[in-house]
Amino acid sequence: MSFTVKKIDHVAICVADIDEAAAKYREVLGLVPEQREVVESQKTEACLLPLGESNLELISPRGNEGLAKFLEKRGPGLHHVAVEVEGIEQALAFLKGIGVPLIDEAPRRGARGHKVAFVHPRATGGVLVELVEPE
Amino acid sequence: MSFTVKKIDHVAICVADIDEAAAKYREVLGLVPEQREVVESQKTEACLLPLGESNLELISPRGNEGLAKFLEKRGPGLHHVAVEVEGIEQALAFLKGIGVPLIDEAPRRGARGHKVAFVHPRATGGVLVELVEPE
Repeated sequence: MSFTVKKIDHVAICVADIDEAAAKYREVLGLVPEQREVVESQKTEACLLPLGESNLELISPRGNEGLAKFLEKRGPGLHHVAVEVEGIEQALAFLKGIGVPLIDEAPRRGARGHKVAFVHPRATGGVLVELVEPE
Repeated sequence: MSFTVKKIDHVAICVADIDEAAAKYREVLGLVPEQREVVESQKTEACLLPLGESNLELISPRGNEGLAKFLEKRGPGLHHVAVEVEGIEQALAFLKGIGVPLIDEAPRRGARGHKVAFVHPRATGGVLVELVEPE
């Protein structure tokens, strides 16, 4: 490997109504919402629920067609896993080099201003994985 | 809250072939499989891929009809999120007391010998959550 995966940054849960979902996670698991923002680059709204060194992230489409379709087809549920990496550009170059299918070949600006890039679910045989590097 | 949720213990990914999936996660994210076991109480086989304070867990049905149906209907993918709690019996009693729908009202013996219990996905509006307490 030419890059380091440090931890799970977040587990993203697609929901129709962030307020309703946040209230449920607070009631059931005692999780307290922290950052909430509209992420223009992803056309989503995101709300972080910190949990240990990681977070649950509630996401809802704000123009994101893929996410809207996910909701329509499957209903709310687990959407992707994001892992924190060191050196996201090198990571993407390495993965591209070994033929791993990528959705983003270069990082975009995600929630919290982090650099983010999605690996195609084919790479893992079914799970959408996001690489995240804090600035 | 009458119990404490400490961290994400694992994110479970349902797969048809654990060897094939483990090889992909090793190639793409550099994750190295650690414990692998048949979990009799769940009728599954499970393989842990440690990642920071948490793990990805590859699970495959070994008689578990729910998991077999999941694979048939949706194909491999994210299946549930497990959180580590302190005091799983008290947690379950508390949740039952406030009317949260539970799959397991008492803990069972899960992978690694941990006490585990599943909360019904209705409780969170769509996500299957497992409570885990190491012995």
